[in-house]
Amino acid sequence: MTEFHSIIAETGAPYGDPIPVHGLGDVATACRAAEGAFDIYRATGKEERARFLDRIAEEIMTLGDALIEAAMRESGLPRARLEGERGRTVGQLRMFADVVRKGLWQQLRIDPALPDRQPTPRPDLRLRMIPVGPVAVFGASNFPLAFSTAGGDTASALAAGCPVIVKGHPAHPVTASLAAQAISTAVAACGLPAGVFSQIVGPSHELGAALVQDPRIAAVGFTGSRAGGLALVRLAQARAVPIPVYAEMSSINPVLLLPEALRARGAALGTAFVGSLTMGAGQFCTNPGLLIAIDGEGLDAFIASATNGVAAALSQTMLTPGIRDAYVSGVVALADHADVETLASGDAGEGTRGGAILFQTTAQAFLADPHLAHEVFGASSILVRCADADEVMALIARLEGQLTATLHMDTADEPLAGRLLPQLERKVGRILANGWPTGVEVCHAMVHGGPFPATSDSRTTSVGSLAIDRFLRPVSYQNLAPSILPAELRDDAKGDGSPRLIDGTLTLS
Amino acid sequence: MTEFHSIIAETGAPYGDPIPVHGLGDVATACRAAEGAFDIYRATGKEERARFLDRIAEEIMTLGDALIEAAMRESGLPRARLEGERGRTVGQLRMFADVVRKGLWQQLRIDPALPDRQPTPRPDLRLRMIPVGPVAVFGASNFPLAFSTAGGDTASALAAGCPVIVKGHPAHPVTASLAAQAISTAVAACGLPAGVFSQIVGPSHELGAALVQDPRIAAVGFTGSRAGGLALVRLAQARAVPIPVYAEMSSINPVLLLPEALRARGAALGTAFVGSLTMGAGQFCTNPGLLIAIDGEGLDAFIASATNGVAAALSQTMLTPGIRDAYVSGVVALADHADVETLASGDAGEGTRGGAILFQTTAQAFLADPHLAHEVFGASSILVRCADADEVMALIARLEGQLTATLHMDTADEPLAGRLLPQLERKVGRILANGWPTGVEVCHAMVHGGPFPATSDSRTTSVGSLAIDRFLRPVSYQNLAPSILPAELRDDAKGDGSPRLIDGTLTLS
Repeated sequence: MTEFHSIIAETGAPYGDPIPVHGLGDVATACRAAEGAFDIYRATGKEERARFLDRIAEEIMTLGDALIEAAMRESGLPRARLEGERGRTVGQLRMFADVVRKGLWQQLRIDPALPDRQPTPRPDLRLRMIPVGPVAVFGASNFPLAFSTAGGDTASALAAGCPVIVKGHPAHPVTASLAAQAISTAVAACGLPAGVFSQIVGPSHELGAALVQDPRIAAVGFTGSRAGGLALVRLAQARAVPIPVYAEMSSINPVLLLPEALRARGAALGTAFVGSLTMGAGQFCTNPGLLIAIDGEGLDAFIASATNGVAAALSQTMLTPGIRDAYVSGVVALADHADVETLASGDAGEGTRGGAILFQTTAQAFLADPHLAHEVFGASSILVRCADADEVMALIARLEGQLTATLHMDTADEPLAGRLLPQLERKVGRILANGWPTGVEVCHAMVHGGPFPATSDSRTTSVGSLAIDRFLRPVSYQNLAPSILPAELRDDAKGDGSPRLIDGTLTLS
Repeated sequence: MTEFHSIIAETGAPYGDPIPVHGLGDVATACRAAEGAFDIYRATGKEERARFLDRIAEEIMTLGDALIEAAMRESGLPRARLEGERGRTVGQLRMFADVVRKGLWQQLRIDPALPDRQPTPRPDLRLRMIPVGPVAVFGASNFPLAFSTAGGDTASALAAGCPVIVKGHPAHPVTASLAAQAISTAVAACGLPAGVFSQIVGPSHELGAALVQDPRIAAVGFTGSRAGGLALVRLAQARAVPIPVYAEMSSINPVLLLPEALRARGAALGTAFVGSLTMGAGQFCTNPGLLIAIDGEGLDAFIASATNGVAAALSQTMLTPGIRDAYVSGVVALADHADVETLASGDAGEGTRGGAILFQTTAQAFLADPHLAHEVFGASSILVRCADADEVMALIARLEGQLTATLHMDTADEPLAGRLLPQLERKVGRILANGWPTGVEVCHAMVHGGPFPATSDSRTTSVGSLAIDRFLRPVSYQNLAPSILPAELRDDAKGDGSPRLIDGTLTLS
């Protein structure tokens, strides 16, 4: 295959001109260019690198409506959502520019020499974080802007000082190409080597595999399916030099409806739940795919309201025919399950459209069959009805790792919440109260991560400023003369704004 | 097998009473106890946890000379070395107590709610690091105190709030048992659950494998051989829930003798090199196993002096018969290699003793055969003679990952050092100038780590305060009421001494 077509999500018709497919030679060329650019790019100062990130944001805005238009066509997502996603994309580039300027990511540490220490003198030791090397980023289908070509993985890797090679998602090649063009324009405008950023496109898995296997690649960022993420992890581990893969994969995001909250506002919670469930056709990593509650009147009110809401929900265009097919299969398997009851389903839609659906089962049935806990990507959720708090505890204990857990609770629920919290902390990356897991804030205190299989590395996040740490590693310098020490570790660099841990004491600049 | 004997390193004779071998049931019991203790232990406050670490240090000193005596018998290492190692062991426990008190490891982050933000309000988000869960630690043979039962991995995991299960090294079971007793005494004295610390002993690999495979274990610390480390990594990756293994494995620690330094003090460098090479019978992860230099008069003076030193070196008792056998095989393979010349060898010794040896080869030969770059654990080193600086650069570019790289240099060598530094940074965890890699300072700016195969995870260190990060992961809390928020994230906790990143700005307490 030498070219492929983008597809209009809503109609399945081809979109735009045919797109040339990259080959294995292009992967090698991009990796060589990234390797060649690495030492130059990582030597950029904080301000220079920050300006580059700001410039990418600017160039994305300069693309104007063409970018929104392309993303709408290719993803089937509505304008308002994509305009919001663009805001998030440029916002996170600017946040990383700010993070780079502030320098906390450098983790500068200085232990001055103690020449008179007994029995042996202490040498002078200084530590900084350095970028790991060229990073491969896999664009996600469900966030054509914020998690794709110019998304969070790319922004955080570039902020760390790593050249980036994106494997553009084949579901939105035109959008990806526009975003890549914006980044490359910024690269050129900032006088950086072209190899700082490249994009590879094509529909086959072969290209992505070759990218992960290239010895010049030092780390991988991925958002997508569990099967896809695990395949990349295996490839990365089988290399002569294994590398880290940061794969954000699979989560059903348990929502716990605690008794007093249900009693106080069961119906309102039902309505709000349907809003979170159906947003973006349910195609969010943080979609509320699992509801957990104790039987009672409050739950009945919730069910009545959620059932009405789901039944009234309109179908929506899904991202790709493949995602729609997988969604339908997942839903059918649940509907056909002997221990699962379908509470309500909305307009199912035709072609590439998918509808909302709500199931229910018992805690016993849910615990008996691990398949019931598998993610169904789309607007499907399952309510697990528990007899009492102990059953809720048992359920949580058996859950796999998740991105989020949500507690709907009132003050009177606090004793139960207090019991649940230590368990939930061990299962998830983010715990939220009285809200919905969809809508992930890009900020400093965000964790969009979690224990396996939510991600392949629970020590990290793919959203928020902490994401930069994924692409850094520490190096220590012992007794180096100031003339050859990295500039930020010299004594005369103090006061440059970066925090420093000096002899174990944190100083602010 | 139900019991085994400790062995006196020097004589091979049995030492002390027979030691009962643990079984798989004991592994499960220890893991269950660790899991049961986890929530209680991780809830300890900073001061309580710090006092526990201090208490372990105290209890180790209380063991008195019995500990030193046992370690001398079992390792063959001399008294002064082991007394120094004990100082290091209690020093690092106290350092981690200090680290726990200061709270930087918590990485507290608070992004307050912005209810009036447009187009959507920002929720309240707060982040802290939590311990990952029970940690398995594999004691190292070559540091019976500082890298074993109560060593750096144990200290950093306990500091992070993780219960620890040590697989005691079978080469020093009596020493391990004394250290375990000290820790357990501290556990009881501090009123902590006994499951906070356990030790499993026995000569078979089966016990260690079962420990890594137990679903309650959340991370692994290991110092030892490349084969051993990689075996644990494979086990950990094959689990239903893969876990991180921090294995410090293999390093030959290149020492670059730059021309002007050689010219100025070639002979003195040769003498100092032999001191570093033969210390502790060369049984250090940071032993200088590779010398790299450009031909010339200065190098001739270095060779003459190093050759004399090695020839005069006395043999020393090695840690175990197995290590001695592996050392002899490694040395014989190098001596028999067609492209390798033996420059000098000292008294080879008999029985469990090993002698020093120095080889030389050319850059071309070294690059042609990767076996020449494999670690020979013991007092063996190979000098690679290069024709010019370009050959040195080519050699560095081809090296595997290392713990350290050393530059012996004068001011006039700075241009060459400047060329080498970016390359060295990509290969190692610590770069030192005008010293020797043996002797790893326990401090805040230390990195005892490095790219594969020096370690299995280049983002970490196993020595120094940064080692605590290996056993922590971030959790974010969104809109939680103060009454159920973790105490350190509440507004009223500000001023408790822990630094906080508030809305992106670092504040000191």
